[in-house]
Amino acid sequence: MRLQSENQVTVNNIVFGGPMPLICLPLVAKDRAALLQQAAELTQLRPDLLEWRIDGYDLVEDISASLEALNALKAAMGSTPLIFTCRIHAEGGLRKMSQETRLKLITAAIESGGVEIVDVEMRNEPAFIEKVKKTAQACGTRLILSYHNFDDTPDEAFIHDKLVSAQDMGADIAKLAVMPKDYADVLTLLGATLKARTGVVKVPIITMSMGPEGGVTRVAGGLFGSDLTFAIGKESSAPGQIPIGDLKQAMAVLYE
Amino acid sequence: MRLQSENQVTVNNIVFGGPMPLICLPLVAKDRAALLQQAAELTQLRPDLLEWRIDGYDLVEDISASLEALNALKAAMGSTPLIFTCRIHAEGGLRKMSQETRLKLITAAIESGGVEIVDVEMRNEPAFIEKVKKTAQACGTRLILSYHNFDDTPDEAFIHDKLVSAQDMGADIAKLAVMPKDYADVLTLLGATLKARTGVVKVPIITMSMGPEGGVTRVAGGLFGSDLTFAIGKESSAPGQIPIGDLKQAMAVLYE
Repeated sequence: MRLQSENQVTVNNIVFGGPMPLICLPLVAKDRAALLQQAAELTQLRPDLLEWRIDGYDLVEDISASLEALNALKAAMGSTPLIFTCRIHAEGGLRKMSQETRLKLITAAIESGGVEIVDVEMRNEPAFIEKVKKTAQACGTRLILSYHNFDDTPDEAFIHDKLVSAQDMGADIAKLAVMPKDYADVLTLLGATLKARTGVVKVPIITMSMGPEGGVTRVAGGLFGSDLTFAIGKESSAPGQIPIGDLKQAMAVLYE
Repeated sequence: MRLQSENQVTVNNIVFGGPMPLICLPLVAKDRAALLQQAAELTQLRPDLLEWRIDGYDLVEDISASLEALNALKAAMGSTPLIFTCRIHAEGGLRKMSQETRLKLITAAIESGGVEIVDVEMRNEPAFIEKVKKTAQACGTRLILSYHNFDDTPDEAFIHDKLVSAQDMGADIAKLAVMPKDYADVLTLLGATLKARTGVVKVPIITMSMGPEGGVTRVAGGLFGSDLTFAIGKESSAPGQIPIGDLKQAMAVLYE
């Protein structure tokens, strides 16, 4: 019933773009102890994936400390795949860092072997993206190229073209999150997602409208072509996320 | 958070167009015993309203038998308001009847005092609609003017204009149900509903996309301006309806 992706991506036993949209919980801990405790708690909630938003980690600029924490995190997660994200400050990241440090951290994390999926923003310099992409390819890590807009919802053509760009730039998965001012913007996001899914975008897609009005896209977006939704396990990482229990309950009704 | 109606309609203690979309269960029994048993069972499920689709009743053309059954039905329903509908065959009605008999039945039912809301199709002759409207006004019954299309989904402008027409023709509540061929049609229905709600249509609105793809509009349509959704209590009356328990569960997540 739901629209599946042509180029499905399988990570561990998890299929992006298959019959059901995936549920991901964000880890946003400030220190190592909280990170590992969250990982244990969130894994109990049986999400399909966890995302470590390492930009919220106090020691994010200490690469060896971060790699050590990543290693411990992976051990706590079992077989649940990890999305590793050091979100850029301009798109909602919690830390202002130099691009040099971000790139070193991201590539080192991939090379450590503990990252199934890495998310970087399309707004990074082409050389930055190229370096992450090559490292990811060499290590068997899948690449999300993303766009976030916390101010508004661009028009349908802009959103559609961003998803196409992500695919053209070599993403395994294209991600876009925008902020609606009203329910018309919510329909714009869903319409652009549907156009991408039924048109030229063959890779899996992750889209959402944020904020309270956008909540419906976190539950029902999968019907229109979004392959993953972020929920709240312990803490949210963006406005409008829904607790995972509620989300699963509502999704069970919509997806047969 | 949801978009409310400007001209809310209150029936008993039920508000059309208020903070929550209403849930209505259809009664589609063939005989009196089944009707009363269904009424008792469905009332237990605590819907906001029941709709008697009398076109599915074996004795529908026997007006005095129908009025007697209506009277017994009302007694079984307690304070739950009733939508009385003798759906025309061309829009999904289960019985081919003369317009003369339909009009006599509908006006007699209203005059019996047991009908809080009556639904008639916009495609009826102007004199038919005028007679129902006058009778309803005289008896304090609210009028739904409706349009159903089981073949396809007309374009957004057509759907919007149908809702405007219902209001212009004197409806207290405007209703429209269409059949999608894909998820783009589902977005068309939601977009037209939103345009009506945020534009010139001040009366409460009931819209849905039918069939499996349209299921999302039965759960989330209220966010875009639909004020009532039909669910399954015992039997469905149109394709794509969702069991009331599941529907309430999903709606509890979407509407705060």
